[in-house]
Amino acid sequence: MAVQLLARAPATATTRSPEALERFTGCHGGGLRPATGRVSLVGAGPGDPELLTLRAARRIGEADAIVYDHLVGEGILELARPAAARIYAGKEAGRHALPQSQINRLLVDLAQEGLQVVRLKGGDPFIFGRGGEEMQELVAHGIVTEIVPGVTAAAGMAAATGIPLSHRDHAQTVLLATGHLRNGTVDLDWASLARPRQTLVIYMGLGALEIICRELTAHGMPATTPAAVVHAATTPAQRVVTGTLATLAPRVRDARLKTPSLIVVGTVVELHSLLMPQAGLAVLRQA
Amino acid sequence: MAVQLLARAPATATTRSPEALERFTGCHGGGLRPATGRVSLVGAGPGDPELLTLRAARRIGEADAIVYDHLVGEGILELARPAAARIYAGKEAGRHALPQSQINRLLVDLAQEGLQVVRLKGGDPFIFGRGGEEMQELVAHGIVTEIVPGVTAAAGMAAATGIPLSHRDHAQTVLLATGHLRNGTVDLDWASLARPRQTLVIYMGLGALEIICRELTAHGMPATTPAAVVHAATTPAQRVVTGTLATLAPRVRDARLKTPSLIVVGTVVELHSLLMPQAGLAVLRQA
Repeated sequence: MAVQLLARAPATATTRSPEALERFTGCHGGGLRPATGRVSLVGAGPGDPELLTLRAARRIGEADAIVYDHLVGEGILELARPAAARIYAGKEAGRHALPQSQINRLLVDLAQEGLQVVRLKGGDPFIFGRGGEEMQELVAHGIVTEIVPGVTAAAGMAAATGIPLSHRDHAQTVLLATGHLRNGTVDLDWASLARPRQTLVIYMGLGALEIICRELTAHGMPATTPAAVVHAATTPAQRVVTGTLATLAPRVRDARLKTPSLIVVGTVVELHSLLMPQAGLAVLRQA
Repeated sequence: MAVQLLARAPATATTRSPEALERFTGCHGGGLRPATGRVSLVGAGPGDPELLTLRAARRIGEADAIVYDHLVGEGILELARPAAARIYAGKEAGRHALPQSQINRLLVDLAQEGLQVVRLKGGDPFIFGRGGEEMQELVAHGIVTEIVPGVTAAAGMAAATGIPLSHRDHAQTVLLATGHLRNGTVDLDWASLARPRQTLVIYMGLGALEIICRELTAHGMPATTPAAVVHAATTPAQRVVTGTLATLAPRVRDARLKTPSLIVVGTVVELHSLLMPQAGLAVLRQA
């Protein structure tokens, strides 16, 4: 498979010099390039291309091959060299383009061909990105690997909606969880999720929203607890629906929100109506 | 106070054109600049300057005044224009240079002078950064405000140490907390912290490490649970001490780790010895 890809992405192609970025950051990439292949597991951030890190942008610009997920924001792949191979690895809910074992194998194969490989994931590779599993596989094969962290979806959502994740008047802890629906249920430790003075952010939980609101209430959280669903946070397509644990699920159904969406639960959501007109500025101006 | 600062940072100074960055990202900043002052609450990321976002770097380069915290990484302020005012707002443990109320007042004053103000915080402004409080104050004064999210310290630490925060074999939730010592104790909801299949990251908890390890054990977490303290993650000064809830506190004392340090607790810490030689590459090469 890697051999076929090479036809599209010659290993001899010269890497575009990231001189402008080097001048800007004072960091020099030229000496970092190893003689053999390597894999960078790169967080693409929450969606807005300007929320990439400087290192992520540089790695994408240097890459021979980019293996990317569904959640990588529009415009980000445009930073790649024209000759770079772009390989879609999927992960859309219910439509996994490549099984995890094949993704792992692909990354190993590409690096063993001597390519500079970027494995590009939405958000941060080590927060619900399966970066740990991929890195274990790469290290087991002796592949030089690095992690480039990213702005996780929860932080991007918070900034773009005016919903602080922590706040001395509201929440002293932040709990990040995933809400995958499996066989009609969600496997979560509800008692630890349903705590006061905590902001709960659930990734990939839209399909289980009704179950989540019901279980949190059943485990002691007041039905009046503020909560929101945010679709496509930080992008021009961002939409926010707010409510309470009692009202959120029907409101989101009426609004026909789709994936990718985050669920946020906690009294910090009250601040959204106050802060959103400001927080949304950057998003609105880009649109 | 703002008037004095103006003497150092003339409002008439032309903003350095971020053309290189615009070419690189395809984003255009020129049209965004409002006629009046504004405040950007900007996450500076975990320490390494290359882990700034593209937008954070741009805002710093455009700013007339930068109000920064102790945790902002070295080299980041060098992105500012020479004429930009640089104001230290402190927040070092036990040495708060400016009380929060004075920081709020300063930001309002600077913006009302018509300046482009960057309020620069380590990590992400909405994760233990008091960004919510500052934004409320600014909005109450009618100041145009935006949040630029950043890579939170936990994600930077994870990437630079090979400790994934989530992992299907280890942890399905990630809990972020702060461990400030107040009157010899720490006010945390120990029962929800001491959960299996969860990665716990405690910010600003070094001074309370012994209490934290003891309380987690007292609330049901096995004393053999892997745990680590990471000092100055993602910077050349990074140091990692690993152990268990039983052994970590004495080991950290012996190693004389200082702030800023993160505490991470959970079986994901087991992966550090396997993945660290790789994850540390970027850090080591920069040193």
